[in-house]
Amino acid sequence: MGTTQADPVQEPKYWHLKTVLTEALDSEFSVGEILPNERDLAARFGVARATLRQALEQLELEGRLQRRRGVGTTVAPPRVGVAVGSERHLWPGAAGDAWQPADCTSAVPPAAVADLLQTARDERVHTVRRSRVTHGQPVAAELLYIPASSVPDLSAIDAPSGTARARAVLRELQRADLEDQDQAVELGSASAEDAKELDRLPGAPVLVVTTRYHAGGRTAAVSVATYRADTCRLTFGASGRVEIHHDPERRAS
Amino acid sequence: MGTTQADPVQEPKYWHLKTVLTEALDSEFSVGEILPNERDLAARFGVARATLRQALEQLELEGRLQRRRGVGTTVAPPRVGVAVGSERHLWPGAAGDAWQPADCTSAVPPAAVADLLQTARDERVHTVRRSRVTHGQPVAAELLYIPASSVPDLSAIDAPSGTARARAVLRELQRADLEDQDQAVELGSASAEDAKELDRLPGAPVLVVTTRYHAGGRTAAVSVATYRADTCRLTFGASGRVEIHHDPERRAS
Repeated sequence: MGTTQADPVQEPKYWHLKTVLTEALDSEFSVGEILPNERDLAARFGVARATLRQALEQLELEGRLQRRRGVGTTVAPPRVGVAVGSERHLWPGAAGDAWQPADCTSAVPPAAVADLLQTARDERVHTVRRSRVTHGQPVAAELLYIPASSVPDLSAIDAPSGTARARAVLRELQRADLEDQDQAVELGSASAEDAKELDRLPGAPVLVVTTRYHAGGRTAAVSVATYRADTCRLTFGASGRVEIHHDPERRAS
Repeated sequence: MGTTQADPVQEPKYWHLKTVLTEALDSEFSVGEILPNERDLAARFGVARATLRQALEQLELEGRLQRRRGVGTTVAPPRVGVAVGSERHLWPGAAGDAWQPADCTSAVPPAAVADLLQTARDERVHTVRRSRVTHGQPVAAELLYIPASSVPDLSAIDAPSGTARARAVLRELQRADLEDQDQAVELGSASAEDAKELDRLPGAPVLVVTTRYHAGGRTAAVSVATYRADTCRLTFGASGRVEIHHDPERRAS
């Protein structure tokens, strides 16, 4: 009496297949191995191609499989923990920063970024493109937006463009006191440009991390970083601790 | 000389359609409005159904569209910022906690969680199920794993099960000093049970946040929380600041 029993949940057809496939991946396949084609897999497990495809898509979302351009579907290695936020706040480009500057242009940012920076919608800002590589694999691409007012002493003369320009802008930015920073993580899809940089297909799911850097009582810079969702687990807080290794989908049954 | 020009990037066909659709969503549709069916949309934009479907899927990943059970495809409201990590570390269930406990069972956790807790693989732990609701919408479901050693004075008598039991376990947990916590965010897919709780379809993309609570020099509790990826933007750091409102996909062109 009183206790409401939850309705039993109906699992879709491909869900059971996903479980069976997960077990097969654990026992029969090794990391990097190419899976048999869809027709053979569907025949082996006695399911329709559509059901198989749904199960494969789930396993890709969960980081167990990777679809690779010109290679096929392979067994994914465990996701790599990538430190994104730590308790120590640092300017981009400070010592120990994992990002490599690639380029710097002057461009009108997306309207939402302009609003965060409180610049006019048509005002150009320094736009630094950086990339992040872990264990030889590209894991993230970033656009860092810095208004001219955040780097007042920047000289246009000594480094007009490219990597040198990016370094000069970051060096100037670091002269201000970083007061605070905050971050937001959300799901997005890779643009063609990001996809190329990340060695993924356009439209692939990515984790988009937006960081606001606060200095002088306002937002001095905004970073929009796009992380591969298939290979990355973003870590926050207590750096230097033991890695979290887990598969969030393999819950207690 | 010296400067390598990047190859021009070939955008896939549906990418252009996505841009056109985004403009249509901004100018012609309002939040919550149901989109015309796929056949009509494909005819209007002069594209194949497959191309249309790819574009719609991208817009769903980016949070612009929502597919809803028995309703169809609707224009999504802007994503809601949900505070996940802040500089102040608190035990689950502490004052101001946004989570509602629903249930508490004793169960063997997933192997990876057992490893984090350093419990034996077959040892049962207290498993508290909680849910998080923002503006009347379910945004996240959580399983919180607490080994018996973290709540040594818990009495089995006064609250044997259900919400009262969950509250009793959390109350006991809070008696220890929380030393630190760290978090990881990764992409996952909703299990049938989570999907039901989050009012989504099974397999829908979710953001999985794993939090480790450190006390007494070890991991005293592990939380695995599943957030709706379509409606949530997870925020970290500096709480109480102005919301980040942006669309990460609408980059400078």
